[in-house]
Amino acid sequence: MFSSPFSMLQPVLEKMILGRKLTGKTMKFLLLIFVGVVHLLPLASGKAIHGNGTSQRTFQEIKEEIAHYGDVAKAIINFTVYGKGQNRSYERLALLVDTVGPRLSGSKSLEKAIEIMQQNLQGDGLENVHLEPVKIPHWERGEESAVMLEPRIHKMAILGLGSSIGTPPEGITAEVLVVTSFDELQRRGPDAKGKIVVYNQPYTNYSAAVQYRMEGAVEAAKVGALASLIRSVASFSIYSPHTGIQEYQNGVPKIPTACITVEDAEMMSRMASRGNKIVIQLKMGAKSYPDADSFNTVAEITGSKYPEQIVLVSGHLDSWDVGQGALDDGGGAFISWEALSVIKDLGLRPKRTLRLVLWTAEEQGGVGSSQYYQLHKANSSNYSLVMESDLGTFLPSGLKFTGSNSARIIMEEVMSLLQPINITQVLKNGDGTDINFWIQDGVPGASLLDDLYKYFSFHHSHGDTMTVMDPKQMNLAAAVWAVVSYVIADLEEMLPRS
Amino acid sequence: MFSSPFSMLQPVLEKMILGRKLTGKTMKFLLLIFVGVVHLLPLASGKAIHGNGTSQRTFQEIKEEIAHYGDVAKAIINFTVYGKGQNRSYERLALLVDTVGPRLSGSKSLEKAIEIMQQNLQGDGLENVHLEPVKIPHWERGEESAVMLEPRIHKMAILGLGSSIGTPPEGITAEVLVVTSFDELQRRGPDAKGKIVVYNQPYTNYSAAVQYRMEGAVEAAKVGALASLIRSVASFSIYSPHTGIQEYQNGVPKIPTACITVEDAEMMSRMASRGNKIVIQLKMGAKSYPDADSFNTVAEITGSKYPEQIVLVSGHLDSWDVGQGALDDGGGAFISWEALSVIKDLGLRPKRTLRLVLWTAEEQGGVGSSQYYQLHKANSSNYSLVMESDLGTFLPSGLKFTGSNSARIIMEEVMSLLQPINITQVLKNGDGTDINFWIQDGVPGASLLDDLYKYFSFHHSHGDTMTVMDPKQMNLAAAVWAVVSYVIADLEEMLPRS
Repeated sequence: MFSSPFSMLQPVLEKMILGRKLTGKTMKFLLLIFVGVVHLLPLASGKAIHGNGTSQRTFQEIKEEIAHYGDVAKAIINFTVYGKGQNRSYERLALLVDTVGPRLSGSKSLEKAIEIMQQNLQGDGLENVHLEPVKIPHWERGEESAVMLEPRIHKMAILGLGSSIGTPPEGITAEVLVVTSFDELQRRGPDAKGKIVVYNQPYTNYSAAVQYRMEGAVEAAKVGALASLIRSVASFSIYSPHTGIQEYQNGVPKIPTACITVEDAEMMSRMASRGNKIVIQLKMGAKSYPDADSFNTVAEITGSKYPEQIVLVSGHLDSWDVGQGALDDGGGAFISWEALSVIKDLGLRPKRTLRLVLWTAEEQGGVGSSQYYQLHKANSSNYSLVMESDLGTFLPSGLKFTGSNSARIIMEEVMSLLQPINITQVLKNGDGTDINFWIQDGVPGASLLDDLYKYFSFHHSHGDTMTVMDPKQMNLAAAVWAVVSYVIADLEEMLPRS
Repeated sequence: MFSSPFSMLQPVLEKMILGRKLTGKTMKFLLLIFVGVVHLLPLASGKAIHGNGTSQRTFQEIKEEIAHYGDVAKAIINFTVYGKGQNRSYERLALLVDTVGPRLSGSKSLEKAIEIMQQNLQGDGLENVHLEPVKIPHWERGEESAVMLEPRIHKMAILGLGSSIGTPPEGITAEVLVVTSFDELQRRGPDAKGKIVVYNQPYTNYSAAVQYRMEGAVEAAKVGALASLIRSVASFSIYSPHTGIQEYQNGVPKIPTACITVEDAEMMSRMASRGNKIVIQLKMGAKSYPDADSFNTVAEITGSKYPEQIVLVSGHLDSWDVGQGALDDGGGAFISWEALSVIKDLGLRPKRTLRLVLWTAEEQGGVGSSQYYQLHKANSSNYSLVMESDLGTFLPSGLKFTGSNSARIIMEEVMSLLQPINITQVLKNGDGTDINFWIQDGVPGASLLDDLYKYFSFHHSHGDTMTVMDPKQMNLAAAVWAVVSYVIADLEEMLPRS
């Protein structure tokens, strides 16, 4: 229905855009005309269109509306993957993380990163750039070490777990009990008293294994252990310890807890199975301080027609205190910035407001996003879509999406715009620590679907640096992020909730 | 020609052996009869056969001789891959390296490992178990650290290089010059004076990259640098520094030198390209001590007919002082032991002597094997084949072989006996630090050809542990090693040198 007045313009524009012989300004101008035409058409059709999602339009009509974004999508892809935006998210991220390093909740470097990002977003010409105050945990690992004293002297690589208490200054020296599961710990409960429990749980998948990091100390303390050392939750190891948050439980004594390497966990398991007595001296200077002041960092492209309505794109700016926080979650934060940056550079302005949020203190359990939700939840009905990238920005294959069936088929149409780079999958269960509050509230949510092959080898380790990042893969991820956020923000209607 | 008297026995034996319904003793007995028949046949044929390789036999005749080892090969494969020998080399190795840890030249743990191995080989019932004295380098790394002071504070993982001098106790604090090649260092020579040179050479392959580890300090010292830090020679990194030997040059000042991680080398390269001033404080407690006493560890199965003639199988027992020295070269040493162990367990005794040598101080430049060669080279003409496994014991696909064409076609026939496990390749350029002395002397040499995919990710790093080893792959490697060494040692003639 919209296709006929359009059919002459489209091939011309497509050729001009894809040929990339245009100057940036000419391209912007043509795109604005083009986008204008597309957007006026529904109004000219005389149909009753409502920004609140109550339209009676058929899916066929919505499908046709989305199809008209083909050239915008191509322009975004060209700009991001082959054009001026190429490698930009990678290079911007490298500059930040080389400059400030890792960004632990409560640290000076996180503060500095937020400051720099505020300047970056302002310098980039985004709108409504501001900081929203958040109280966040402040824990520091201090000096830490673990030395095996028996059956032989062996200095072990460890990483204390976030929120863990420290040991006395002289450390804890105790015999080790190695178990491979909570069940085994239960069965051997009486043996654990006064010992250091070592968990050598298998890595079948992240969700299963991470329980030992989260609850290992509590379960060990329940049976009288003095400390717990947990096999790093890693799919592959080159003697690399991983960290992460852990949780104490009311009424259960707090004991120090750290991750050891896969290699040392397996070695102690072999030693124990041979009947060797294993003794470890563990020293941890870990300490918690009063909550610190921090901020969620916000920037927008204000909507042209429904500015009160929001499509939110996000990643978190904080990280663990090792490596560079490049993969977790520099990449997600920077493709989110890139989405707005590209849309602005192409002179596009969607009907709804595109809001970038760089969360603080995600690693402490979504602290920044939780406070953001509390602050903004009254406005929940105005959120069309919440997007989060926090599982890598490796080779993307599409999105994971949570929402009604009607919303899903719209999302599938939008993703078909990414056919030129063959990234069109829409799987179920879109989620993320920082958007789940909204999803539980009924807002449609999308997370980036990318190749997780290497992710858990580097996650929360010293290896989370720019070396693992791939500029080309980040370009593709940024293109997905920009196309989806722009088109959803610009569609005549919000994503339907039912 | 040997086939007819044999054709009835063969299928029966094969069925019995492959059916594995036999007891160990019955199998040994049958194998002895079988092997006896095979070996008497050439003598019965009336041909002039010489143990010194001067026979006039045709290749066709040798080929037939080798074909008769099909059942012996199957018995070895069955025992090693599916039978009683399954996983034995892995488990024996795990016990040693868990017990003594890494085994640096000149260290107490190498001494202890040699002691244990002597007991192991005696306990295994091998013959002529003895130690051959060797003087070896004694270098210790001591405490070491590198901290980036500018443009931001960053504790870097390093590993000092073998034979490096230390720094003064207060360390060396200096600005950094980052180069990506020796050529660039030459061009920027005057900039290097008074600085710490950081090499960020690319990893194209090991041989190319390792030159920077070997000669980086000398080249940097030539242009007046105070120290050199070299990107670890690694195909893949999770922030893992790698060590290895380096060499000073007469007349060039000695400066401290260490490897940094791939990640830090790349980061400093990015920083430098942005014009950042980089300052590092390097502290190294490295020190060389007078040469230490050590030993090559030797065991044999004495030859039944030509005991003075030798097939040598080998790997090295020393390692770097990080990880467990499991991959480099625990695996090679232990499949070499396993080869003799299996042959003995199956009650086989070849005509020539099978000699196992576990070299000491290979990592310091083949120190043990060089002294062995000096001691035994007068007997060089009696060495039929020298074998070394020192590039991993991952999934094997065959051998690399150096020798005459006549020897090569014999080796190809021998390898065809490994058809049941599909490991039959014979590539060119068999070599190894510890056997090259012999190869240069004209002795045919073979090295294990296996899947190197992971090797240089772990080599000389904290990650060289049992975790990277695979018992099934070690079984296959041991089967190759046992079949080749036994058959070559048992053939009526030595491998021809021309």
